[in-house]
Amino acid sequence: MSIYARLEELAVALPEATPPAAAFAPFVRAGELLFVSGHIARRDGKPWVGQLGSGLTTEDGRQAARSVAIDLLGTLHAATGDLNAIRRIVKLLVLVNSSPTFTEQHLVANGASELLQEVFGAPGAHARSAFGVAQVPFGSCVEIELIAELGARDD
Amino acid sequence: MSIYARLEELAVALPEATPPAAAFAPFVRAGELLFVSGHIARRDGKPWVGQLGSGLTTEDGRQAARSVAIDLLGTLHAATGDLNAIRRIVKLLVLVNSSPTFTEQHLVANGASELLQEVFGAPGAHARSAFGVAQVPFGSCVEIELIAELGARDD
Amino acid sequence: MSIYARLEELAVALPEATPPAAAFAPFVRAGELLFVSGHIARRDGKPWVGQLGSGLTTEDGRQAARSVAIDLLGTLHAATGDLNAIRRIVKLLVLVNSSPTFTEQHLVANGASELLQEVFGAPGAHARSAFGVAQVPFGSCVEIELIAELGARDD
Repeated sequence: MSIYARLEELAVALPEATPPAAAFAPFVRAGELLFVSGHIARRDGKPWVGQLGSGLTTEDGRQAARSVAIDLLGTLHAATGDLNAIRRIVKLLVLVNSSPTFTEQHLVANGASELLQEVFGAPGAHARSAFGVAQVPFGSCVEIELIAELGARDD
Repeated sequence: MSIYARLEELAVALPEATPPAAAFAPFVRAGELLFVSGHIARRDGKPWVGQLGSGLTTEDGRQAARSVAIDLLGTLHAATGDLNAIRRIVKLLVLVNSSPTFTEQHLVANGASELLQEVFGAPGAHARSAFGVAQVPFGSCVEIELIAELGARDD
Repeated sequence: MSIYARLEELAVALPEATPPAAAFAPFVRAGELLFVSGHIARRDGKPWVGQLGSGLTTEDGRQAARSVAIDLLGTLHAATGDLNAIRRIVKLLVLVNSSPTFTEQHLVANGASELLQEVFGAPGAHARSAFGVAQVPFGSCVEIELIAELGARDD
């Protein structure tokens, strides 16, 4: 099934790619690898401000991570012109704005990981690191960086 | 010498690959690069909980990082079926659960870096970043992500 | 224009590559990708100690990030023997030693990003993640890791 049909089935609307808030590119291709810049969580077009373990719950963080994954899909679409040209999602780096005692970064990150697997199927399964950071630009609660591989899928 | 003979010489027993604690893959191959997910420090099968600079010493952290490197070797073995198929270790990202005043993340990370060089020799020397994070999933004291290159070794 | 002519025009003097402070390599090449280890900010040859949002201003951090970019150029020169052999800068990971309330990591990171674009032109534009970390080795205020692609430039 086309990735776009799958997105429709999941009722996920692709956003426009977010222009970087600073002096860098939203993505860079090197060989078959596509490196996507860290995207911060946004809500209603503004940074989704907050810290896990201090105001925001794990479920809030999970929703924020899911919304970042949708923004990353928007950037992947802008980068490739066709999401079906993505061979697989390779790796996520998930940065969770965390209080000193919050230790469920892996559950927050699942919000993004699960969406990518729903959208891409098996090629959506990726390597991942998730951890708690002291802060994120604009005070956003989650930031995610992604590496994808381009090419024909095995399935 | 075979990597396995070297492991025996060093009295390092390879663990079973640890299944991810969440919705992601333990490793993903893209071209000749193998991206291995962040592995947290474990002791007696449970997360090695604690923070450097607040209860844990630099030497504790170094031992924890060494144990993560051994777990990463278990995952590399599971990924390749043969550790001799690894051309070199490319990069480590070493996340140290740190109090606001702990600044010896590089010494903690050496526990992993030195083991990899003992096991692989010169091809075990890798690029690296180490820094202090606010928290790690499950409250573990160290998390390490690895990139390896597959192929025949130069030596 | 040669990158070296450009550096002269910008009055940027390339430093000697800094030897790693611990058991790792300053860079590793895998295929056409060059992975450069995290470089910490230095001033007068010593770690540039401090934290953003607690003593250091955003402008201080920006200068520190710029100085790290210059050190990274020194390492890229040592790695390649000729900076003109760099096809493009692929990605930066910018770690900003941040107090719990500092949220301008993107502005700090611009100090490095802008310099790389001044030096390399369009091929200097890169993907990037910037975030706040709890600490950096030696208490340095900024640490930056870089990935470059080798090969002939498009321009």
